[in-house]
Amino acid sequence: MKYSEKRFIVTGGAGFIGSHMVDALLVRGAKVTVVDDFSTGFREFLPKHPLLTLAEGTLLDTEFLDRTFAGHDFVFHFAANADVKDGLKHPRKDVEQNTIATHNVLEAMRKNGLREVAFSSTGSAYGEQTVIPTPEDAPFPIQTSLYGASKVACEGLLTAYAFGFGFRVFVYRFVSMLGPRYTHGHIIDFYRKLLADPTRLEVLGNGLQKKSYLHVSDCIRAMLTIVEKSAMPNDVHIYNIGHTDWLEVNRSIQIICREMKVSPKLEYTGGERGWVGDSPKILLATERLRGLGWKETFSVEDAVVDTLKFLTRNPFCLERG
Amino acid sequence: MKYSEKRFIVTGGAGFIGSHMVDALLVRGAKVTVVDDFSTGFREFLPKHPLLTLAEGTLLDTEFLDRTFAGHDFVFHFAANADVKDGLKHPRKDVEQNTIATHNVLEAMRKNGLREVAFSSTGSAYGEQTVIPTPEDAPFPIQTSLYGASKVACEGLLTAYAFGFGFRVFVYRFVSMLGPRYTHGHIIDFYRKLLADPTRLEVLGNGLQKKSYLHVSDCIRAMLTIVEKSAMPNDVHIYNIGHTDWLEVNRSIQIICREMKVSPKLEYTGGERGWVGDSPKILLATERLRGLGWKETFSVEDAVVDTLKFLTRNPFCLERG
Repeated sequence: MKYSEKRFIVTGGAGFIGSHMVDALLVRGAKVTVVDDFSTGFREFLPKHPLLTLAEGTLLDTEFLDRTFAGHDFVFHFAANADVKDGLKHPRKDVEQNTIATHNVLEAMRKNGLREVAFSSTGSAYGEQTVIPTPEDAPFPIQTSLYGASKVACEGLLTAYAFGFGFRVFVYRFVSMLGPRYTHGHIIDFYRKLLADPTRLEVLGNGLQKKSYLHVSDCIRAMLTIVEKSAMPNDVHIYNIGHTDWLEVNRSIQIICREMKVSPKLEYTGGERGWVGDSPKILLATERLRGLGWKETFSVEDAVVDTLKFLTRNPFCLERG
Repeated sequence: MKYSEKRFIVTGGAGFIGSHMVDALLVRGAKVTVVDDFSTGFREFLPKHPLLTLAEGTLLDTEFLDRTFAGHDFVFHFAANADVKDGLKHPRKDVEQNTIATHNVLEAMRKNGLREVAFSSTGSAYGEQTVIPTPEDAPFPIQTSLYGASKVACEGLLTAYAFGFGFRVFVYRFVSMLGPRYTHGHIIDFYRKLLADPTRLEVLGNGLQKKSYLHVSDCIRAMLTIVEKSAMPNDVHIYNIGHTDWLEVNRSIQIICREMKVSPKLEYTGGERGWVGDSPKILLATERLRGLGWKETFSVEDAVVDTLKFLTRNPFCLERG
């Protein structure tokens, strides 16, 4: 792919993963338009760059999208409600901000003649799987969370647009990402709690949940590798993106406590799951991705340490959420 | 299940399958409220019955739903855009009338304390499968149509509500249904065309598409059998409903022409698929359902003949679509 010849939209471009993709595209000489409403994104994550344009607005505003998408070629669609844990508190949020928003993105593309889109899906799309590591063609999943359900709904829309309108679609099923600009998930939750009270730490579930994590720089390389090299039938490119390794919550706590130099009393809320709809074990099979020549560089532990380093140096990220 | 002790909502209760369910529930002594906007349903399909109430309105009107659902126990949710073939002509229709409408149904249930819901999904949810007959735990499907994508989105919402809010959910993945009150699909299309011009018949695709069909009376028995007998983990009951047999389009045409006593020239549009996103082979594995003691009674051919008999006797059904 000749990046300098394409004009990219990055939705959620001021967010954690999106902003790293913006940097990666700019460094390759691409023109980039960031679409973000700053509901969870940070202006601090966006560089000043002559090739970068900011379009501030919401994906629920279809006129704004139609206007903004004109004259572009390729969409990286990251904007989403990524609040997995509290989905049940606001049951319309995932439908609106994920499913409907994604459909709006696809419609704005169709109307403006854009045909290439890459979408950040999730390992949660597999629901609670019995096959671990979970491959892309695992058994038809039963959704256990509104978040997973909404992401699967988005995937279906993308692939239907591939078949129906000749779109070229890339679906990334992510494990949890770590690294600079990480602002959401169990590490920031623990970090925040331990800053407030280093003597005790409430842990959701029994601490035995075990999940895979990946450093965001490895993730960005994986996404670009897929866009550049993937050859799949019908131009539907579905890839797990994750580490071969995984990390138990208890081990994660050990690393965090060591780095923060604290020894809290651990208070488990109990049960196998951190919350309703939580999958206690997440490890994705990534042979498809590795077949393109990709390999992670960070160990999971180093990714956790790098995340903590970022949070320590950028306390403004703690002010939200 | 003691039907006479429950108050049922049947969305799409004036439609093909919905109206048969209404009849089946009334005959069992249940109180039934039909929710229908008559966009595709027929008033002629609803009986006058002291236990039947009609609530005319759309599933996109959340206030209407909240008001109507109060005081009920169990929802059979049939209302949907079932226009699979022309999904690409109106790309927002499936999202609105299937995904958003279903979410509105679930929210109206949650707000009113209803917790049991049965949903008409589809074999199209499997996309284009390599495993035929296709079981409920077939490989993670790639959606090829907006219709299939929207139904999978609905399934995900239902099961997420099961895990999140303790709902009891029944998901029926149907093959195409036939029989009295059938008003949509290839048989009525052929029938209508042959009435207009018995000398020729345009056939979408190459005529070799082969799909499974079931008589609606067998379908109703299957749905009730599942509600009465199914025991599945987490109260998530997912079942294929279909025949062991299937029918090639060309064979279907033979039956229709024989019954109508016509011999048209067949004009194939060509290609393996009738339309974009069409699955040329649909046959569902139904061991799970048969394990509950259910068995079909109509042969596929008899179901086609019974459908034609209905259409001949009820020409008002030809006036729409």
